[in-house]
Amino acid sequence: MPLARLSVPSHLAADKIQALADAAHGGLVETCGVSPNDRFQLVSTYAPGMTLIDPTFPNVVRTPEASIIEILFLEGRTADQKRRLFRWISDCAVRAGFSADDIMIALTENASIDWSLGRGLAFGDQHRPMEGATPAPGK
Amino acid sequence: MPLARLSVPSHLAADKIQALADAAHGGLVETCGVSPNDRFQLVSTYAPGMTLIDPTFPNVVRTPEASIIEILFLEGRTADQKRRLFRWISDCAVRAGFSADDIMIALTENASIDWSLGRGLAFGDQHRPMEGATPAPGK
Amino acid sequence: MPLARLSVPSHLAADKIQALADAAHGGLVETCGVSPNDRFQLVSTYAPGMTLIDPTFPNVVRTPEASIIEILFLEGRTADQKRRLFRWISDCAVRAGFSADDIMIALTENASIDWSLGRGLAFGDQHRPMEGATPAPGK
Repeated sequence: MPLARLSVPSHLAADKIQALADAAHGGLVETCGVSPNDRFQLVSTYAPGMTLIDPTFPNVVRTPEASIIEILFLEGRTADQKRRLFRWISDCAVRAGFSADDIMIALTENASIDWSLGRGLAFGDQHRPMEGATPAPGK
Repeated sequence: MPLARLSVPSHLAADKIQALADAAHGGLVETCGVSPNDRFQLVSTYAPGMTLIDPTFPNVVRTPEASIIEILFLEGRTADQKRRLFRWISDCAVRAGFSADDIMIALTENASIDWSLGRGLAFGDQHRPMEGATPAPGK
Repeated sequence: MPLARLSVPSHLAADKIQALADAAHGGLVETCGVSPNDRFQLVSTYAPGMTLIDPTFPNVVRTPEASIIEILFLEGRTADQKRRLFRWISDCAVRAGFSADDIMIALTENASIDWSLGRGLAFGDQHRPMEGATPAPGK
């Protein structure tokens, strides 16, 4: 129930897209206590001219593979967890052939009550026993 | 001035996309006090491989029609309103032929001052009488 | 490290897309203290039928060029800065040929620790001297 949105250049190879998605999710699992199965990721590709990304701010050197990972997740992670998340994702991306300078990450937070993972139930309510997949009509 | 972003598989039929959008907006109107005319929705389609969505987390069975609705709206809705919103959207989607397990929803919040619905005005300021569509230059 | 997402109709001319992106970034620089080089923007185009945008809410007249600018940036900007940001973006867009009624803006906020602009480092940590582009393995 983190939701990750990956914005990548349209020329990025499929295996690098997959590696970046794996890096993003692996980082959440390893540093933020996310369940390995709790994976929800959307990948959007951008043609040249549809991204306007500064090549060097604040002190990096970006290539045409520069990619942006946005993660919406539950509030409550510590600054140290976020630092380790960034490092984990970056290290994995580098092992997949990315430049560490090309991986930008932005986090936003919400609360448990802000998620429904199906069946019309709030996430916190979903773990209670349920009788079936379809809620009673009119409820 | 809620802004809803629907992420759906590229094979989803147009009438189901429309029904899902209607469900998302109807839920906001019915449970969260949103004006029927206050509708702003963006639909993005994802080709196979561009979504990485767990098929069963936490306790559902998703199909290839699994879709994600993100809603950005004003802070202040209660937990009960959010629960009813999830249920309303899901029930409407089921009536349109979706599986209730395929409807994931994520909410994020901001403040009234964080919206401009046109004319360069903050939303809260927009309801004051205005003299015309174009603000005075230099103001 | 603001991240701006522009959602525009697919028929919008390239020079108007560029002007809208320039308006969004210029507004951040002029009203919110963002560095001119701190530019990260993603543009998505929407075919007819993939946006459901009310034509008049709350008191405007939108054309088929109606566009939505979402900006994620650091918390802490004042209401007045946000008002000036809206006005700045709108005024620039109007000078580029847009109707002021067609520019919708939504702001969301996060914290400094929520950003990594590269090298696996949190933004606040990135300004410290670094020895190289690649972090030490295993750290």
